[in-house]
Amino acid sequence: MSLYASLFYSADVQPLLSDEATVQHMLRFEAALARSQADSGLIPAASADAIATCCSVALLDLEKLSRDIALSGNAAIPLVKQLTEQVGQRDPDAARAVHLGATSQDVVDTATVLTIKSVCEWLETRLSTLEDTLAALTRTHRQTVMVGRTLLQQAKPIPFGLKTAYWLDAVMRNRQRLANVRKRVLVLQLAGAVGSRNASISAPVQQHMADQLGLSPSVSWHTQRDNVAELAAALGILTGSLGKIAKDVSLLMQTEIAEVLEGKAEGKGGSSTMPHKRNPVTCTAILANANRVPSLVATMLAAMLQENERSAGLWHSEWEVLTEIMQLTAGTVARSLELLRHLEVDEQRMAQNLEQTNGLIYAETVSLALAPTLGKAAAHELLEKATKQAIAQQKHLKDVLFGLNVDLPQPDELFKPENAIGQSLDIIDTILHQHHITKTQ
Amino acid sequence: MSLYASLFYSADVQPLLSDEATVQHMLRFEAALARSQADSGLIPAASADAIATCCSVALLDLEKLSRDIALSGNAAIPLVKQLTEQVGQRDPDAARAVHLGATSQDVVDTATVLTIKSVCEWLETRLSTLEDTLAALTRTHRQTVMVGRTLLQQAKPIPFGLKTAYWLDAVMRNRQRLANVRKRVLVLQLAGAVGSRNASISAPVQQHMADQLGLSPSVSWHTQRDNVAELAAALGILTGSLGKIAKDVSLLMQTEIAEVLEGKAEGKGGSSTMPHKRNPVTCTAILANANRVPSLVATMLAAMLQENERSAGLWHSEWEVLTEIMQLTAGTVARSLELLRHLEVDEQRMAQNLEQTNGLIYAETVSLALAPTLGKAAAHELLEKATKQAIAQQKHLKDVLFGLNVDLPQPDELFKPENAIGQSLDIIDTILHQHHITKTQ
Amino acid sequence: MSLYASLFYSADVQPLLSDEATVQHMLRFEAALARSQADSGLIPAASADAIATCCSVALLDLEKLSRDIALSGNAAIPLVKQLTEQVGQRDPDAARAVHLGATSQDVVDTATVLTIKSVCEWLETRLSTLEDTLAALTRTHRQTVMVGRTLLQQAKPIPFGLKTAYWLDAVMRNRQRLANVRKRVLVLQLAGAVGSRNASISAPVQQHMADQLGLSPSVSWHTQRDNVAELAAALGILTGSLGKIAKDVSLLMQTEIAEVLEGKAEGKGGSSTMPHKRNPVTCTAILANANRVPSLVATMLAAMLQENERSAGLWHSEWEVLTEIMQLTAGTVARSLELLRHLEVDEQRMAQNLEQTNGLIYAETVSLALAPTLGKAAAHELLEKATKQAIAQQKHLKDVLFGLNVDLPQPDELFKPENAIGQSLDIIDTILHQHHITKTQ
Amino acid sequence: MSLYASLFYSADVQPLLSDEATVQHMLRFEAALARSQADSGLIPAASADAIATCCSVALLDLEKLSRDIALSGNAAIPLVKQLTEQVGQRDPDAARAVHLGATSQDVVDTATVLTIKSVCEWLETRLSTLEDTLAALTRTHRQTVMVGRTLLQQAKPIPFGLKTAYWLDAVMRNRQRLANVRKRVLVLQLAGAVGSRNASISAPVQQHMADQLGLSPSVSWHTQRDNVAELAAALGILTGSLGKIAKDVSLLMQTEIAEVLEGKAEGKGGSSTMPHKRNPVTCTAILANANRVPSLVATMLAAMLQENERSAGLWHSEWEVLTEIMQLTAGTVARSLELLRHLEVDEQRMAQNLEQTNGLIYAETVSLALAPTLGKAAAHELLEKATKQAIAQQKHLKDVLFGLNVDLPQPDELFKPENAIGQSLDIIDTILHQHHITKTQ
Repeated sequence: MSLYASLFYSADVQPLLSDEATVQHMLRFEAALARSQADSGLIPAASADAIATCCSVALLDLEKLSRDIALSGNAAIPLVKQLTEQVGQRDPDAARAVHLGATSQDVVDTATVLTIKSVCEWLETRLSTLEDTLAALTRTHRQTVMVGRTLLQQAKPIPFGLKTAYWLDAVMRNRQRLANVRKRVLVLQLAGAVGSRNASISAPVQQHMADQLGLSPSVSWHTQRDNVAELAAALGILTGSLGKIAKDVSLLMQTEIAEVLEGKAEGKGGSSTMPHKRNPVTCTAILANANRVPSLVATMLAAMLQENERSAGLWHSEWEVLTEIMQLTAGTVARSLELLRHLEVDEQRMAQNLEQTNGLIYAETVSLALAPTLGKAAAHELLEKATKQAIAQQKHLKDVLFGLNVDLPQPDELFKPENAIGQSLDIIDTILHQHHITKTQ
Repeated sequence: MSLYASLFYSADVQPLLSDEATVQHMLRFEAALARSQADSGLIPAASADAIATCCSVALLDLEKLSRDIALSGNAAIPLVKQLTEQVGQRDPDAARAVHLGATSQDVVDTATVLTIKSVCEWLETRLSTLEDTLAALTRTHRQTVMVGRTLLQQAKPIPFGLKTAYWLDAVMRNRQRLANVRKRVLVLQLAGAVGSRNASISAPVQQHMADQLGLSPSVSWHTQRDNVAELAAALGILTGSLGKIAKDVSLLMQTEIAEVLEGKAEGKGGSSTMPHKRNPVTCTAILANANRVPSLVATMLAAMLQENERSAGLWHSEWEVLTEIMQLTAGTVARSLELLRHLEVDEQRMAQNLEQTNGLIYAETVSLALAPTLGKAAAHELLEKATKQAIAQQKHLKDVLFGLNVDLPQPDELFKPENAIGQSLDIIDTILHQHHITKTQ
Repeated sequence: MSLYASLFYSADVQPLLSDEATVQHMLRFEAALARSQADSGLIPAASADAIATCCSVALLDLEKLSRDIALSGNAAIPLVKQLTEQVGQRDPDAARAVHLGATSQDVVDTATVLTIKSVCEWLETRLSTLEDTLAALTRTHRQTVMVGRTLLQQAKPIPFGLKTAYWLDAVMRNRQRLANVRKRVLVLQLAGAVGSRNASISAPVQQHMADQLGLSPSVSWHTQRDNVAELAAALGILTGSLGKIAKDVSLLMQTEIAEVLEGKAEGKGGSSTMPHKRNPVTCTAILANANRVPSLVATMLAAMLQENERSAGLWHSEWEVLTEIMQLTAGTVARSLELLRHLEVDEQRMAQNLEQTNGLIYAETVSLALAPTLGKAAAHELLEKATKQAIAQQKHLKDVLFGLNVDLPQPDELFKPENAIGQSLDIIDTILHQHHITKTQ
Repeated sequence: MSLYASLFYSADVQPLLSDEATVQHMLRFEAALARSQADSGLIPAASADAIATCCSVALLDLEKLSRDIALSGNAAIPLVKQLTEQVGQRDPDAARAVHLGATSQDVVDTATVLTIKSVCEWLETRLSTLEDTLAALTRTHRQTVMVGRTLLQQAKPIPFGLKTAYWLDAVMRNRQRLANVRKRVLVLQLAGAVGSRNASISAPVQQHMADQLGLSPSVSWHTQRDNVAELAAALGILTGSLGKIAKDVSLLMQTEIAEVLEGKAEGKGGSSTMPHKRNPVTCTAILANANRVPSLVATMLAAMLQENERSAGLWHSEWEVLTEIMQLTAGTVARSLELLRHLEVDEQRMAQNLEQTNGLIYAETVSLALAPTLGKAAAHELLEKATKQAIAQQKHLKDVLFGLNVDLPQPDELFKPENAIGQSLDIIDTILHQHHITKTQ
C-alpha cells in the first residue's frame, strides 16, 4: 500500500504512524508504568531502571512480534513477553515487575493516544500555517472580483477573497474543534483486566504515569469509545472542509473557467499525449482522500458497541482504521498546504468570465435600483422581460434596457462587478480579524 | 415509513421533526426577518406586522408546497410564493417586503437550525434524566458483585455498579459534547444569494433576527457544513454509547446468563409459540438504530464537499438524512430511558454465575496472594498447574489447591467475589461525584 | 419525511412501498399459507377460505398495529393477533388455523420479498424505457462532436453519442445485474421458529405457497442475509450509474460550458432573484439520492452478522433501510427518465467549445500525422514547442505551426473535430447493436 | 500497517496484492499491448520483443516510481517513462512503440483487473475447501442436537448440523455470486485518452491482447465503474456471510454456553493473568474485518459518480480501497478456514444446555401434542399456565404437567430433543446434496 503513499499521504507523518512508532509508544507505556510504580514504592527502583533500559524498539524482534499477534490477538501480549525476556536477561528480579497490574488493552490504547497526540501536534502546526496562507490569499484578493456560482451556474459577483475567507473560517473552526477533542481524548488508559484497577495501578500510579506521558488520568474507557470516535469524526470533518476547497479549485481550474490554477511544478499534472492539459493533480489527491474518510469514520462509530468489559472484534477493528484516518487526514492537510501556497489566480480570466452572461448577473442589482421609482413588482417584471430578450437576442442586458427606453440611474455603476459584491468586504474583514485574534491568543 | 415508528422513534420528538414543524420554522424565519428589517427601518412596520400575521402554517397549502418542490428544488421558493400571495391578499405593499434580501438556503438552513435547537433541548432533558437513572442504578448496585467478561469470556468479578458507572460516565461526556456542539451549530444562516449579504440583511438585521430566534449571528455557512456535520457526528457518538448499553443488556439477558432483564410489560417481548422466551425487544430497537446511524453520519460527512457558493445535490442530500439521524437518536434515547428505568437485576443469578468456573476467576487473586511467600514466578506456575487440573477434573480451584497441599493465607477471603473487585468502589464513587457536580452546576 | 417526496422519490412507487402495501403482503402470506395447508389436507378448506376472506388490510386497525409493534418487536405478532380475531368472529374453528407453523420472520421476510418483486418489476419496465431513450439520444447524436474532458480539462473530441452510448452500456449491465439478483432474492421465507420447519410447513406446503406468490421455495434464510444484501448493492450500483449521468449533465450545464441542458418546464429551476439562472434541479435530486444510497448499502452489509437463529437488532435494522434504498433508487430512475427525455443538446455551443483551446486539443492528432515524416520523437518535440508557443501567444496551433513553416499534410482535415474521434462510431454501433439484441430477446 | 497483517490478512494473498505485483501487472499490459500491435502489423516484431524483454519489475526503480506518482497523479505515467528509458537503451526504435495509443487509465485499470483475477482464483480454491469443511462438519453433526437461539434466547432444539448446513448454503451462494461477477469484471481496459479508441488500439489489437491476458475485450469503462463496484459488493457480502459464522462461534464459545470452541493452539487465545480464559482470537479477527468491509464498499459505490471521460479524484479513491477490500476478504476467508477446520464441538455441553429451561423449550411441542384431544386453544392455555408455574417454582415442565394431572401421550418422547427438530434432517440433506451437485459440476 505504499505505492501511492507520496500521492495520498504526508511523508512527515509516516514516521509517526509507523509500526516502530506504535511499538515504541507501547514501550514508553511500560517504562512509565514501572517508574510510577517504583515512585509509589510498589517495585524496586532498580527494577524500574532495568525495565526502562530495555524499553527500546531496537531490542525487540518486530517480525516475531507481528507473527505472534495472530495467536495472541493483540500486540501487547507478545510485546510484554519479549520485553520480559530482555529485562530478565539483565535483571531477573526486574522481570517480575514488568507490566504489573496492567492489561493488554491498557498498553495498546495508551500507545494509540500517544500516536494521536503526536499527530494532533503535527496537525496543529500545519493548520496554523494553512490559516496564515489562507489569510494572506484573502488579503491579496480582497477586491479581486469573480463570479459566484450556485448549483454550478453563474450567480452574482463576489471577491475571490470572500471565497478564501470562508475557506479560512472553516479551517479555524476545525482547529478549534480539534483542540476541544484533544482535551477529551488525550487520556491515559490504565484500568486492569476488567476495568476495576488494582493495587499496582492505584490512583497515585495513574497520576504519576499520566504526568510522565503528558496525558490526563482517567477511569477506564476500555469499552467506552466515544472519545476516539469523536477524534475520528473531527478528522473526518477537517478532511471534508479541505475537500471542499479542492472541489472549488478543481472546478475553477476547468478549461472553460480557468480562473484559478494549481501551481506548476516540473512534470506535474502533465499529459504526454495532450500537452495543453493542466491536470489538477493535487486536488485529485485531496478529493480521493475526502471520498475515503467518511466511510472510515462510520466504521469507528459502528465499532462503539463493544461488549461488556472488552470487545471481541470491534476494538480490534479500530486499530488500522484510526491509523488510516490519521494518514489520510494528514495527507490531505499536506496536499492542501501545497495547493494553497502555489495557487495561481488569473484575475483577467475572472474579469472575462464576469462578462459571459451579457450582464444578466446584474439583473437583481438593476431590479433593486429601479424599485424605488417603478415599484418592486414592476421593476421585477421589467427585468424578467429584459432578461428573456437579452438571452433570445444574445445582447447585453444594458443594451436591451436602453432599447426598452428604461431610465437607469447611473447605468455604468450598475454593471460594475465591484458594486455588486454586497457586504463582502465587511465579511472578509470580520473573518481576518477573527484570524488575527486567534493568532495572538 | 411510519409502521415501525413506535418501535424505533420517540413519539415525543415526532412533532418536532414533522413537515409542519419544518414549515413553521421557515415561517418563523420570514416573520423574524421582516420584523428585524422593520426595526432597522428597511421596511414599514405595518408590512412586518402583515407578514408576521401570515406566517402560520395553517394558512399554507402543504400539499401544493410539497408538489412544487419538485420544480423549484427546495422548499423555500414555493413557500415564499405562497406566503407572498397570502400577505398580498391582506396588504399588497407588505407583499413586496416578503423574504427581502434573503436566499432560499437562508430559510432552509435556519429552519434546520431551529429544529436542531428544539431536538437538542429535548435531548438535554432526557439525557439528564438518563444520567439520574444511571446514577441511581449505580448507587443501588455499588456492591452487587457479578462477573466481568472480556472477549465474551468470564474474566474477573466486578460490581454491577461499576458497569453502570461507566455507562453513566459515557453519557455525561456525550451530554458535554452535545453542549459544545450546540454552541457552534445554533447559528443563523442569512447571507443572500452568494453569501455576500446585502443592504437588506445588514449586520444589525442579522443581530436582531438572531436574538429573536434564540440563535447567534454568523457569516455564511452555505457551503461550509462542518457544524451540521459535527452535530450529526455527536448524535452518532451518543447513539453508539447508548447502543453499547443495549448490547451489554442483551448479552446479560441471554437465557444462559440471565443476570439482567428488560422489565416486563404486558405483552412485551413474548413469543406465542415459545412462552418461556423473554425477548430483549427494547434492546433490539436500540441495536437496530445503532446499526443505522453510523452510515448516515458518513453521508453527512460525504456531503461536505459542496461546490462553490451553493451545491448541486450535496446540500439537498443533508435534509432527510439529518432528520433521520435526529429521529433515530431521539428514539434511541427514549428506548434507553425505558430500558434502564425498568431494568431487572437478578443478584442471585449473578452470584451463581460467579461460581461457574469453579473458582478459576480467582486464579490471579490467589497467585498474587501466594507471590510474597513463593515468589511471583513460582506462584504463577503453581496456579497454572492447579488451573489445568481444576478444568480437567472439573473440581473447584480451592479444592485442587488443598489437594496440592498449598498453604493458602485466608482461603475463604481469597475466593470471595467482593474481595476481587479491585478499586471498583473508588471508581464508582469518583464517577458518582462527577455526576453530582454536573448536576449542581 | 414526505415534504421532499416529490423531489427525491417516485410517485408511482410510493404505493408499492407504503405501510398498507407491506401489511397487505403480510396478509397475502397468511392467505397463501392457509390455502396451501388446506390443499395438503393440514387444515379444513373452509378454514382456509375464512382466513383468505379476512386477509384484507381494510379489516385491520393499522394504528393499533403500529402501536403494538413497540411491544412485540415486529409487525407479524400484532398482525396475526388482529387477523385471528377477525377470523374468529367469522369462524372460530378457522381462527385456530391462522399462521400455523410459521414464525414472525417468515411473514415479515416474505412480505419484504413481495415488495422487492413489485419494485423490481417497476424498475425493469422503467429501465427498459430508459435504455430506449438513451439509444435514441445516441442515434441522434452519433456524429454530434463535442470535446471530451478528463480530470475536468478539455482533452480530445468525441461524439456526444459516444458519451450517451456509454451511459446506455452501463444501464444495460445494471438491468442484467438486477435480473440475476432477482433469481436469487425472490424466494419464500417459511422455516418456522428456529429455521427447522415442521409438519405444518412441509415441502409440499412450501412449493404450493411459493407458486401462489410467484416466488421460489427455499431453505431458511432467517440469518443468512446475502440475497437481500445483494439486492441492496445492485440498487446501489444502479443509482451510482445513474448518478454518473446526472453528474455529467450538471457539469455540461455549467454557464461556462452550457452544452447540455435540463429541459425547461414552467417554473422549473428558476431563481426569483437571478432570472438568468437555469438550475439543474433534476440532476440535483439525482445527485442527492446518489450521495445517500452508498451508506445505506453499507448498513445492509453491516446487518449481515445476525446472531444464531434470529438476530436481536440487525434484522430489524434492515426494514426501513431497504425500503429507503428502494425509494431512493426508484426516485433516481424516475428523475433520470425525466432528465433524459427532455434533455436539450446545444450542438452550436459544443462546436464553439471545441475551439476554446485554439486547436490544442488536436496536438496529438497533428503529432501522429507528422510522425511518419519527422519520426515520432521529433514530431512530439515539435508539437510540445508549438503548444507552448500557442498558449503563450494566445494563437491558434495551426497558425503557430504555419509560422514555424511546418509542412502539415491536409492541414484543414487535421483540425476538424470529426476526424479526431478515433473509433467512436464503431463503438457506438457496437453498443446500439447490443441494445437491439437485448430488446429482441 | 503491517504490524497486524498476520492477524487480519492472509499471508498467501499478500504477494498478489503487493506493489511489485501491481507494477508487474502494468508491465504485462505493456508487453501484451506491444505484442498485439506487432501481430497486427502496427509496430515491428523486434520492437515488441524489445519491449517485452524490458517488462520486468526488476528493471524498474520502484522508489522513484512511487515518488513520481505525486507529480503525475497515477502510476502509469512514471512507469511508462521508466520503461521507455529501459527499452530505449536496448533499442531506440522500440522506445517509440511503447504504450502506443493507450492511456494511463488503460494500464492502471487492466492491472487492477489482473489483480482481481488472481485474487478471485485464490478465493475460488479456498471457498471450495471451505465448503468441503462445512459439508464435513454438517455430516458429522447431522444429529448432534443443541438448542436453537433467537434474539439471544433459547428457543427450540436444532441439530448443530442444521446451523452448519445454513453456513454452507450461504457460502455456496457466495461462490456462485463471485463466479457471476467474474464474468463481468474480468475485462480489458483499452480505450485511449477519452475512451474513443484509435488506430493503434483497434478491435483486433483488443482481441489479441485480451486473449493474452486471459480477459475479455470490452468497450471503455473508464468512468463506468459498475463492475468494480459489483466486485467490491460481492466481497463485502462474502465477508458478511463469514462474519455471521464467526459471530455464532463467538457467542457459542461464551463461558456460560461453551458448546463450540475455537481449536487450541500453543499460545493461542490465552491470557497471562487469567489462565482459565479461552479467547476467541480467530473469531475476533474475522469480526474486526467484517466491521471494516461494509464502509469500504460504500466508498466504492460513492466513487461511481466519475466526471465525464475521466474523474478527478473518485477513480483515484478506488485504488487503495479495492486493495484493502481484497486484503480483508482474503484474510477473512483464511481465518474462517482455520476456525472451521479446528472447531471443537462439545456435544455433552449442548445436551446440558438443552436442559437449562427445565423443559420449557418443549412447550410448543407439548401444546401441539395435546391439541387433538383438548383443542388448540385449550392446549395453548394449559401450557401457558404450566409454563408460568414451572418458572415460578423452578420445576421441570414435565413435572408441572404431571402435577396438573395432564394426560400426556408418550411423555418421554415429547421431551426428547431429537424429536423436536422438525424437518432439520431433510433440510440438511437437501443442502448437502446441493453441495454434492456443485462439486461434481
